[in-house]
Amino acid sequence: MSGRLVIEGGIVATMEQGDHPLPHGAVAVEGDRIVAVGEREGVLAAYPEAERLDATSCLVLPGFVNAHTHLAMTLLRGAADDLPLRDWLEHHIWPAERALMDPATVALGTRLAAAESLLAGVTCVFDMYFHTETVAEVVAQVGLRAVIGEGLIDYPTPSAPTPADALAAQRRLLERYRDHPLVTAGVAPHAPYSVSAAYLVKEAELAEEFDAPLAIHVAETRWEAETIRKEKGASPVRYLADLGILSERTVAAHCVHVSEEDLDLLAEFGVGVAANPVSNLKLGSGVAPLPQMLARGLRVGLGTDGAASNNTLDLLRDAQLAALLYKGLTGDPTCLPARTVAELLTIGGARALGLDARIGTLAVGKLADIVCLRLDTPHGTPLFDPFAHLAYAARAADVRHVLVGGRLVVRNGALATLDVDGIRAEVAGCLERIRQAASA
Amino acid sequence: MSGRLVIEGGIVATMEQGDHPLPHGAVAVEGDRIVAVGEREGVLAAYPEAERLDATSCLVLPGFVNAHTHLAMTLLRGAADDLPLRDWLEHHIWPAERALMDPATVALGTRLAAAESLLAGVTCVFDMYFHTETVAEVVAQVGLRAVIGEGLIDYPTPSAPTPADALAAQRRLLERYRDHPLVTAGVAPHAPYSVSAAYLVKEAELAEEFDAPLAIHVAETRWEAETIRKEKGASPVRYLADLGILSERTVAAHCVHVSEEDLDLLAEFGVGVAANPVSNLKLGSGVAPLPQMLARGLRVGLGTDGAASNNTLDLLRDAQLAALLYKGLTGDPTCLPARTVAELLTIGGARALGLDARIGTLAVGKLADIVCLRLDTPHGTPLFDPFAHLAYAARAADVRHVLVGGRLVVRNGALATLDVDGIRAEVAGCLERIRQAASA
Repeated sequence: MSGRLVIEGGIVATMEQGDHPLPHGAVAVEGDRIVAVGEREGVLAAYPEAERLDATSCLVLPGFVNAHTHLAMTLLRGAADDLPLRDWLEHHIWPAERALMDPATVALGTRLAAAESLLAGVTCVFDMYFHTETVAEVVAQVGLRAVIGEGLIDYPTPSAPTPADALAAQRRLLERYRDHPLVTAGVAPHAPYSVSAAYLVKEAELAEEFDAPLAIHVAETRWEAETIRKEKGASPVRYLADLGILSERTVAAHCVHVSEEDLDLLAEFGVGVAANPVSNLKLGSGVAPLPQMLARGLRVGLGTDGAASNNTLDLLRDAQLAALLYKGLTGDPTCLPARTVAELLTIGGARALGLDARIGTLAVGKLADIVCLRLDTPHGTPLFDPFAHLAYAARAADVRHVLVGGRLVVRNGALATLDVDGIRAEVAGCLERIRQAASA
Repeated sequence: MSGRLVIEGGIVATMEQGDHPLPHGAVAVEGDRIVAVGEREGVLAAYPEAERLDATSCLVLPGFVNAHTHLAMTLLRGAADDLPLRDWLEHHIWPAERALMDPATVALGTRLAAAESLLAGVTCVFDMYFHTETVAEVVAQVGLRAVIGEGLIDYPTPSAPTPADALAAQRRLLERYRDHPLVTAGVAPHAPYSVSAAYLVKEAELAEEFDAPLAIHVAETRWEAETIRKEKGASPVRYLADLGILSERTVAAHCVHVSEEDLDLLAEFGVGVAANPVSNLKLGSGVAPLPQMLARGLRVGLGTDGAASNNTLDLLRDAQLAALLYKGLTGDPTCLPARTVAELLTIGGARALGLDARIGTLAVGKLADIVCLRLDTPHGTPLFDPFAHLAYAARAADVRHVLVGGRLVVRNGALATLDVDGIRAEVAGCLERIRQAASA
């Protein structure tokens, strides 16, 4: 959209620090940017000829940022549940990925994931997967903002027979997407236990060369923490710190089994953290110390992880689970209060990904990544505090409109750039192939 | 509906023990009962002239049973969040209830709750509240099945100045609703710490006289467990057992702070348990030992609790949270597998309430309480296991049709018996009164 649009009629929560929700607010968008945020009357007066987007009875807020996911794994949703982690990974997920994930399949899974994400108000993701040139083309086409990192691991992946091939694919992506409106290229070494030290260092060098984000799974399971301690004589975090992998470019996913000293290290290096509460519970991995991370001022966002271990990309559900989980486990109902939950979904995720100068709040000059959530529902009645509504009652299905970079990708609950029925038909066509691959 | 209806085109999960989901099933309903369940072709051939209800691309299963709630508290949704429990209860909720909850307000809150419940696939609730004759009239009118217990407590309630008045109100309800198609009258002493021993005994006698369910909050908080131990020299469960309160009629809500011995006692007396995972987390009360309860063969259902501590009546969300929570806390991803979660939502809740002879599965002769959940969504794609879909991916917003006692109360996502906009307008009219009452 190159014209002007005013989103008006709703309660506007800018998520800028210190701002309170505006009961009668509006947001003006020009091209891909926000050009005005404020009281409805004032914004409408300043942009009298702009097209209007009705957000009556909606909560208008920044798009949600999914700080850690594997989009194309939507195709493996529900293909292998209720299994121990190693069995799940080694006998179901990895064989299925090797058998299935060619560029066409990755494109299909990514389209399905983009549809689900946008309909759930997710406007930006950090995707760590394979065949990333395909992923980049899909998200750019459908209008989902993404940081994309080609997965590098010591074993053959669906797109790279060797780590050297993965490194080459990463470099190609970094060169191609130096300045794209939606796609940011990054690198994605899998984990401290699955990537050799030499390649971890190469990854960090590549990230530094391009000043690119580096995503890595860190301390996801007790097994990983114990294995690294046994083999390297240090915690996974300390091991990565000593190798020189940790920096402000790092987005460390999971960080479940971390000590106080590990948290200090993450803070010292300014690492961004992507917490994945649903996936960590579902796989029996445990609970990350999110309140302690926030208390240290770490840049923390939330991730769904892949749909094979969640089983959705509904980040709001992850945020609401986190809001409840930490209250119950600490015995402190004031832990992770509603506004903090709203921040984790938006500006928190943007900070974790190093994108907070461009997205994460509704502010003049920022990219127009905006969600309008319906409030005229039974579960939205009565409404006293928009943040409490978001943290404890709202649902992905309440998403009415979504803009990404000023482009209206969801309007009145319908996708503008994707055809769900068509995607479903394509998935149905490879259902047996997925089933066989996942039960190998 | 006195005619015949065939629900056809979906996957039918009867939830009868040993049954597997029927990929091409149908359910025939006559009056308020199920008269056939089976393969689609066979059922259609047996009822060729029946009206048809399209459940194409749906999962058809028994209605969800919310084993513990306080319906009218929807009006206090979000009025006081992120507060320590005693402050929340004593300075916000109780004063608000005393100031607000007259019969008209209870009727409004109950209508709002019924709308939310039915739209979320909940067909039966155990409601523990005040002005229960009003509650009974509302649920009967809108078509929600309910066990209803007038709350009895040592202090004045919104409907009873003294416990004796509450007891009298309970008896009136028990006499009036001896044989109602939707309403079962019960009694509801509040908790071991808030009702004197003499009245607890009177409650048990009344329940025995009418062979009626008795709901009571038990061992919800550490404070309660410690207080009862100090004052009575026993755990809350042991104290109630010694008083003669526990029986197969008892529905014990919460049971968070219970020992192995307490669980043995609950099993010995055949007590039904209503676990409230979301509410217990949100108020910082802790986590009930649900896997241990199931291992002992206790009759366990799930409850949302009131919307002031949840903040929704979306039982599916509670079930999904439980599915994740216990895996994460036990470190065992096989804990609470998907089918168990589906059972907790349906037949488990029915068993906990002593209604499993009438509801909880799709079987010939049972009451036609049925939910059709849409599967043709991004998050429903692909679909390998209907139970995994229910446990990890489905949403309340997927509810397409709902029948209660054969009456089609939700059709294509729209309520047949309630007007949400009208209810919202009424709630808007008393918003300031609620706000003031809750911040007193």
